[in-house]
Amino acid sequence: MKENRLDQARTVTWREDKLFFLDQTRLPIELVHEEQKSAEQVWDSIKKLKVRGAPAIGVAGAYGLVVAVRKHLDLSAEDFLDKIREQADYLNTSRPTAVNLSWGLKRMTAKAEAEAAINPLVTHIFEKMKEEAVLIHEEDKELSRAMGENGLALIKEGMGILTHCNAGALAASILGTATAPMYLAHEKGVSFRVYADETRPLLQGARLTSWELQQAGIDVTLISDNMAASMMAEGLIDMVIVGTDRVAANGDVCNKIGTLGVAILASYFKIPFYVACPASTVDMNTAEGKSIEIEERDSEEITFFGERRTGPEGIKVRNPAFDVTPHKLVTGLITEQGIIGAPYKENLAALYS
Amino acid sequence: MKENRLDQARTVTWREDKLFFLDQTRLPIELVHEEQKSAEQVWDSIKKLKVRGAPAIGVAGAYGLVVAVRKHLDLSAEDFLDKIREQADYLNTSRPTAVNLSWGLKRMTAKAEAEAAINPLVTHIFEKMKEEAVLIHEEDKELSRAMGENGLALIKEGMGILTHCNAGALAASILGTATAPMYLAHEKGVSFRVYADETRPLLQGARLTSWELQQAGIDVTLISDNMAASMMAEGLIDMVIVGTDRVAANGDVCNKIGTLGVAILASYFKIPFYVACPASTVDMNTAEGKSIEIEERDSEEITFFGERRTGPEGIKVRNPAFDVTPHKLVTGLITEQGIIGAPYKENLAALYS
Repeated sequence: MKENRLDQARTVTWREDKLFFLDQTRLPIELVHEEQKSAEQVWDSIKKLKVRGAPAIGVAGAYGLVVAVRKHLDLSAEDFLDKIREQADYLNTSRPTAVNLSWGLKRMTAKAEAEAAINPLVTHIFEKMKEEAVLIHEEDKELSRAMGENGLALIKEGMGILTHCNAGALAASILGTATAPMYLAHEKGVSFRVYADETRPLLQGARLTSWELQQAGIDVTLISDNMAASMMAEGLIDMVIVGTDRVAANGDVCNKIGTLGVAILASYFKIPFYVACPASTVDMNTAEGKSIEIEERDSEEITFFGERRTGPEGIKVRNPAFDVTPHKLVTGLITEQGIIGAPYKENLAALYS
Repeated sequence: MKENRLDQARTVTWREDKLFFLDQTRLPIELVHEEQKSAEQVWDSIKKLKVRGAPAIGVAGAYGLVVAVRKHLDLSAEDFLDKIREQADYLNTSRPTAVNLSWGLKRMTAKAEAEAAINPLVTHIFEKMKEEAVLIHEEDKELSRAMGENGLALIKEGMGILTHCNAGALAASILGTATAPMYLAHEKGVSFRVYADETRPLLQGARLTSWELQQAGIDVTLISDNMAASMMAEGLIDMVIVGTDRVAANGDVCNKIGTLGVAILASYFKIPFYVACPASTVDMNTAEGKSIEIEERDSEEITFFGERRTGPEGIKVRNPAFDVTPHKLVTGLITEQGIIGAPYKENLAALYS
């Protein structure tokens, strides 16, 4: 077994009834696990992206709700359920567009309601909520592990793999999505190289991906986004694996800005381009990628770096947070149910029928 | 005529026997023209990239030599020539790999030697040196203007043009190379949009290109490098124009890192990809691009931003400063002698025969 300091950097930890989040805004400079003592603190931690990544914030929200209601065990069962619903609504406002957060909170609330019907003792309801949060956490780990196992065979000895943004262990409970096959291959002693795009403007590749792979003892090299073509031209890249925020029913992939460029380069150099995601990321209600609305973010992400101005005052900026990669550029989707390839429309429809 | 505040931002100015460099390290925050009073100061300004860009440093070196020797007019003609050679050698060490700098210094030294043979009066030699520096400066302006005129017809009303790095007026005496057709089209009242890649790691696109086009009143939008594909997918880009550091005899183009990626994206989206350069940038002694040695720069350009660490400590980094775009991705070379297209090997050989 290779050394893996990443074990000390779990995004969400529940230990002796205490909740800790790894503060990712302080990475890669400091490794700080911050105890979450109140609903307000959990809200703030999610809002400020101390904990981030779709799978991770689902888990964070579930435990966060436990923390939010534990000082109300003296309420009646009915008032306790009201408090749970109120706190779930409140926590959900920390990232209203994050599907996983509201999913986790809804599941916790439903569990509490179901348990209250069985045994309306507040301590019973509360104990079952804790169990449910732990279960959500465990299921998330299982999902990553299954994606990792399904992608594992793609990683061959000596390979170079490019990834973009952070679809890593820091975005999930363990292993991540795009990185899950890498961690499992590394565990098995397969030797390979990873190239991490720094991922402007917010540098998730530099701050998070290169850090977590380094912690795990994986051979990782950090590059700026515009060096990917050069690495491919040098013959250093044999495969690309990225994550995704949403997959359309036709297989189009919406992911962090820059993914489309990487996919086109991979196609030019005839390099396989894989997308790792839980099957739940496929949105069968989105027919194709072009109907996905792309968030346009603040121009200062481009014109400032910390306090330092890097672009001229008053300059026009475009800052789309995501782009859409057409399905024809995608070699396969690595999911917990196996690797899904073209024709995507048919294969995804079959999966969801 | 459109407003053009760029007139106040000439890289090199010679006025009433005084030499000024625009300090580009302070852009886009401050516009400072710094008088150059000694050889040591000129050396330092070139070394620190206060003045940069192949054409500009040829001119800067020529005037710099005038500044370096003007306090030695009391020497004998022979000693004065020795002083000129000594100071030229010294200034050349400020950027030893810059072909234009040594070219400018050699031309100035040769001129001084030739004039000494005609009239060995030190004041005569010195006056002729000043004239030669002004001539080099004027010729450089002519070169940019000719490239601009040859590229002008490519720019149509309403077009979107992508550029990478800075091959702008700030890299030359006026107008630049890649930007020369844009400035001339703007002068003629053609309305078009420019998208400037920020160009990691040193952000020449953000700090310099977007600034100079903005000063000239051109409609410019700053994007991070990994957004170029998205802009093309949106249909916003109709043409790419970049500069180059060296063109091989077969038409392969060596330019700032990231250029290859842009060329591949342009090819995917069927967008013309032009390279603007003086014909002197074609190196007939370099048969093809792959034999060009690529400078690998300091890893801290990737892992730090100013004082702020952005990549983990001890992380492996690749930082090639340039990449090579194969000639088959190049639509044409915009030179002062016209636009040169495929077959490059034959057409370049004809130009230099």
